[in-house]
Amino acid sequence: MSETQVLVVAGTHGNEINAPWLFNQWHAHPSLINTYGIRTAAVIGNPEALKAGLRYLDCDLNRSFRSDLLAFDQSKAKEVNRAKELLSIYGSSGSNACQISIDLHSTTATMGTSLVIYGRRSTDLALAALVQSRLGLPVYLHEGDKEQKGFLVESWPCGFVIEIGPVSQNVLLAKTINQTRIALEVSLEEIAKVKSGQAKFPDQLVVHRHLGSIDFPRNTNGEPSACIHPNRQGKDWEPLEKGSPLFICSDGHVVRFLGDDPLVPVFINEASYLEKNIGMSLTRREAWPISRSCQEDLIDLVV
Amino acid sequence: MSETQVLVVAGTHGNEINAPWLFNQWHAHPSLINTYGIRTAAVIGNPEALKAGLRYLDCDLNRSFRSDLLAFDQSKAKEVNRAKELLSIYGSSGSNACQISIDLHSTTATMGTSLVIYGRRSTDLALAALVQSRLGLPVYLHEGDKEQKGFLVESWPCGFVIEIGPVSQNVLLAKTINQTRIALEVSLEEIAKVKSGQAKFPDQLVVHRHLGSIDFPRNTNGEPSACIHPNRQGKDWEPLEKGSPLFICSDGHVVRFLGDDPLVPVFINEASYLEKNIGMSLTRREAWPISRSCQEDLIDLVV
Repeated sequence: MSETQVLVVAGTHGNEINAPWLFNQWHAHPSLINTYGIRTAAVIGNPEALKAGLRYLDCDLNRSFRSDLLAFDQSKAKEVNRAKELLSIYGSSGSNACQISIDLHSTTATMGTSLVIYGRRSTDLALAALVQSRLGLPVYLHEGDKEQKGFLVESWPCGFVIEIGPVSQNVLLAKTINQTRIALEVSLEEIAKVKSGQAKFPDQLVVHRHLGSIDFPRNTNGEPSACIHPNRQGKDWEPLEKGSPLFICSDGHVVRFLGDDPLVPVFINEASYLEKNIGMSLTRREAWPISRSCQEDLIDLVV
Repeated sequence: MSETQVLVVAGTHGNEINAPWLFNQWHAHPSLINTYGIRTAAVIGNPEALKAGLRYLDCDLNRSFRSDLLAFDQSKAKEVNRAKELLSIYGSSGSNACQISIDLHSTTATMGTSLVIYGRRSTDLALAALVQSRLGLPVYLHEGDKEQKGFLVESWPCGFVIEIGPVSQNVLLAKTINQTRIALEVSLEEIAKVKSGQAKFPDQLVVHRHLGSIDFPRNTNGEPSACIHPNRQGKDWEPLEKGSPLFICSDGHVVRFLGDDPLVPVFINEASYLEKNIGMSLTRREAWPISRSCQEDLIDLVV
């Protein structure tokens, strides 16, 4: 097997312009990001959408890595063809194979610096735990959502999304760029430590496990009839209590959280989720042990 | 002359969704906005762009009210045809004539609640002074920019833009909606007072007079090679001092303001101005007297 290589993707969504800008600068100044000796392939996910300043042209690239879509030779959707192309080059059996993928995103939601992992793969849990132990960042575990699948990083043996916000679509922000750079650098450093046998795995990973999403209240035309309540706007990762305000209507009516469980909302008011009928997603905060076999799966992949 | 009517436009840019949402709610709940007895025509400026979540489809509607563009019967650009349509219906000689226009915008820049007026029309100065005396808001006077012309409100005998931010494109924000509602309501209240002879004109209007715009530093490919300095991001309306940081490059190099004059930047990091080569605009803060003849011009128009 060839030496470990990490695929680093920016601009999977073309209106998230901070990571692509960082890549431009990284190309011009190679010392900008310390890769700790790890080989990387830095790729713009959706260059055409980036040029247009749009999330996507035909369909969301980060929902296009679905086996049913990838089964055909050629798709009508540009993004499905791009997914096939990325896999043929950088997939774990590709011409320039990568074993791990890191996909750099930004959001209008107040997610801070966070990681998103998909399902419960041992390699993802182990790597996320290493990064969390360094940066103390929250991890969103997305799983079991029939409406939302085909994420890029799922097509590699290990990988996660680095999700940073709030930042407006198509706005360059020094803070966002710096957060992205630091999170990427620490991720590569931890992979390097796994490779050199120096990784110190923590006992546990704190995850925010996806339970479902709730939509904005809508009128009979399907238009949102309320917006996020000002007391909840910007409060991603802060647990809901029974009676917490969620949405407010223009007549002052407040829609409240009625559960007994202290669920934790994420992706509150992400601009592009309005079309996906997601006002916010709800998670449960859980501490998961990182078993020895989890660690070994990551070590086997990297070494 | 028929009774005064005010044209109120939302969604002139289709990715500024808060004012259009307010219009939806206003339609459903007519008491939501107190019009103080003033007749209003509430119109979505660019419904097709709003549906698409884009600033515009062919060209910027708020740069399409140019006499050279409007001189032809039919244009290839949807927005130029829409400009003609709006004028034929709501223009001061239109089938449903309006004398004053108020155009509701939002921005990713930290403009707070502000007004934008174009040129030095006496009616605009008088009305802006009345609103400023009520809300204490800053006024940006845009003039003499050869690159930027053809703004909607210039085609009515009196009018201004209400500009509110920061808010991401395509994000609904309760705060932005409320700011929009209050600024519109106070504007209509002041017009009603002019009509009833009860307006109390202040002695002066504080304007921020447009001097020019500065672009992001760019590389040889035309891509931005620096972003707004974190100490300047979000600091619209705060005067620059000699040596104030403006932009920061990825290698840490800082581009500084070198003027002696305490110019005041506005529209810092507005997402859609990246394509217009505007990183921020520079203004000079000036106090202009509101003469009796200014006041009379507005009174003559409204009464």
